[in-house]
Amino acid sequence: MASPVRIEADYLIETAYDPRVAAEAMAGEQSSGTFVAVPGETPELKERSAARIEALEVIGEAAEPSLPGAGRPQDGQPAICRARVTLSWPLENIGPSLPNLVATVAGNLFELKQFSGLRLTAIRLPSAFAQAYGGPKFGVSGTRRLAGVEGRPIVGTIIKPSVGFGPEETADLVRQLCEAGIDFIKDDELQSDGPHCPFDERVRAVMRVINDHAARTGRKVMFAFNLTGELDQMRRRHDLVLREGGTCVMASLNSVGLVGMIELGRFSALPIHAHRNGWGYLSRAPMLGWSYVAWQKIWRLAGADHLHVNGLSNKFSEPDESVIASARECLTSMFEDKPCIAMPVFSSGQSARQVPGTYAALGSTDLIFAAGGGIMAHPDGPAAGVASLREAWEAAMAGVPLAEYGRDHAALARALEGCPA
Amino acid sequence: MASPVRIEADYLIETAYDPRVAAEAMAGEQSSGTFVAVPGETPELKERSAARIEALEVIGEAAEPSLPGAGRPQDGQPAICRARVTLSWPLENIGPSLPNLVATVAGNLFELKQFSGLRLTAIRLPSAFAQAYGGPKFGVSGTRRLAGVEGRPIVGTIIKPSVGFGPEETADLVRQLCEAGIDFIKDDELQSDGPHCPFDERVRAVMRVINDHAARTGRKVMFAFNLTGELDQMRRRHDLVLREGGTCVMASLNSVGLVGMIELGRFSALPIHAHRNGWGYLSRAPMLGWSYVAWQKIWRLAGADHLHVNGLSNKFSEPDESVIASARECLTSMFEDKPCIAMPVFSSGQSARQVPGTYAALGSTDLIFAAGGGIMAHPDGPAAGVASLREAWEAAMAGVPLAEYGRDHAALARALEGCPA
Repeated sequence: MASPVRIEADYLIETAYDPRVAAEAMAGEQSSGTFVAVPGETPELKERSAARIEALEVIGEAAEPSLPGAGRPQDGQPAICRARVTLSWPLENIGPSLPNLVATVAGNLFELKQFSGLRLTAIRLPSAFAQAYGGPKFGVSGTRRLAGVEGRPIVGTIIKPSVGFGPEETADLVRQLCEAGIDFIKDDELQSDGPHCPFDERVRAVMRVINDHAARTGRKVMFAFNLTGELDQMRRRHDLVLREGGTCVMASLNSVGLVGMIELGRFSALPIHAHRNGWGYLSRAPMLGWSYVAWQKIWRLAGADHLHVNGLSNKFSEPDESVIASARECLTSMFEDKPCIAMPVFSSGQSARQVPGTYAALGSTDLIFAAGGGIMAHPDGPAAGVASLREAWEAAMAGVPLAEYGRDHAALARALEGCPA
Repeated sequence: MASPVRIEADYLIETAYDPRVAAEAMAGEQSSGTFVAVPGETPELKERSAARIEALEVIGEAAEPSLPGAGRPQDGQPAICRARVTLSWPLENIGPSLPNLVATVAGNLFELKQFSGLRLTAIRLPSAFAQAYGGPKFGVSGTRRLAGVEGRPIVGTIIKPSVGFGPEETADLVRQLCEAGIDFIKDDELQSDGPHCPFDERVRAVMRVINDHAARTGRKVMFAFNLTGELDQMRRRHDLVLREGGTCVMASLNSVGLVGMIELGRFSALPIHAHRNGWGYLSRAPMLGWSYVAWQKIWRLAGADHLHVNGLSNKFSEPDESVIASARECLTSMFEDKPCIAMPVFSSGQSARQVPGTYAALGSTDLIFAAGGGIMAHPDGPAAGVASLREAWEAAMAGVPLAEYGRDHAALARALEGCPA
């Protein structure tokens, strides 16, 4: 798909006004509209920078306004309608700048009185953005190479409890997980650099275990160290992980923010595992905020190699179709010459049970499949837990039902016994 | 008020579960809770890092869930209840780190299935945060000194159209505004560094006008140049503004993010005008996201000197009581030894009409009062527009009704004629 010449954004809107009049208010607010004529403004000058309505389609009505504070037109438009709107902006308004893109496509418009609902559902960017930003340095192939995993998903887990363990307790758990055959382990997003578990000590203790294990087995388990912090801290922590032989760093996107992530993307010599914690406040109200389909593009351009997408039948409130739409989008090319593919990370209450559905919906094994209880709570221990997930993926990829595959794969069979159907 | 020993956060929650059980899920998810017992975890180790429920008060019921995706307990809890909850965390979980604070108090909890509503309403921080971060370098007194305005609000305006003007057209408008007696002018958040109005050329053209005017009158108008961009761009742009004699820079918080803002706060030698565009997606759903009372504290600690709060009877959807709560909070001390006061910026459809209400509700003149149409659309021109706002503030501070004060203040009288009552 060719990149657009102008910046494009799709929105879902809800308004009691004529939807075209409301869309014009959005376009005006986010470009050269003025409430009163200003000295010096000319039609040519305003037209040069104006946002344009590219498409508008009414899709239904709402019985009640989804959000409070919206106005009603004085002429009594009869119903509240929902519509899809596409706006576009000249690239020249801001140039290929991600921070200014955010202010343009997701700035002051969510508060406009015309709307009782406004959600950004997609963005499409001119190719100048592909030239201005690096995108993921590792993506699928670089991550596979460092993790030593081909032809199947990377099986991962999370250090739990999130906080509480010190460096040595963390390293002990990592040792068990290495022996269990895990491919990937991540810090919890709550574990950073507190005095009970300082980042540097944790990295040294964990990498001793991982390096020892690699020396014995030839397989280096990938550990995503949570370096979330200020810029100088992230730089120093990244350099330490690299020096100790680590192969991944992790950052919380909503904590670090866009400028921090762009910097991290530029200096990192390791894959960046991007955690989306806080995502709920950006997206859980259906008629407000961001869809992940729009949001994740910004972070991929900035350099995210792995992006969290939740998981099927997760412990959170997100429906499965939203999870799959997010994961598919991470695996969809952004620009013809620069796909910026990021590996989707499935997690949250995942076990062998969700594997066939995940594979069927995604049609790809280019993902990280992370399980906590699905590994640690396997009745025969963590090694059987890891084996059960690998066997479940073998079954899914071969098109064999789990129960059938489990007949001569004990770890999978026991995992299926252990889980509720 | 003494600072707490632990990190504290208040939430408004909505749940169909027993509210205490739901609050325990929040506390567990955001600290040392695990779904299954993990090798190495001990009660002491979990207790050391556990979040604690400090307070829980049921405040009412909801007829319908505010957000989709929430679960219902199997034992059929009869109603959906709303409650206020206070959680606390040991500082030692993360140390005094703003990025990790965000992941802790506003991380994965908004998506928890237990909740059909979850909103962060306040945070209180141990004094270690005051030692770790600089806070506003200029605040009220530094801004007043640079703007040369004492004893009344700083009267400001915005360059409109937001985009479209080139550097010389912008400078021409600035010349008119300087002559009109304005104290403060800001770039629009959509105006950054596009090819039609490059940042550097805009700064040079505008500062020529402002410096000339200062040389003639002794008053240097404060101009907040929107330097929103990547880190190296922000540094370079800041240095240019400083070199050209400018007295303020502006950044969009949701574009720059926390790490970017912390860096800007550290290197800036000028007041930072913090724009909150995009705020609507964080806050407009009443049972989701962030209250500004909680959110603005993070940016003040990072170094914001001016913080946008919208305005009374604004053109957006925010109610007046929310605007005033935000502004009051910006003027409320954060720590005994380090107040971190930021100047609230009132804007959006402001004119003389809103002045008495603003003063009555705020009880302070330590604010920036920005008007667009209220100045440019005054029937006698921009100088009369600026005068009308100053006169309105004189009236409010003297406790005289506007109409009465207008009898011998022509600019105010004409402004009142021009506006709908």
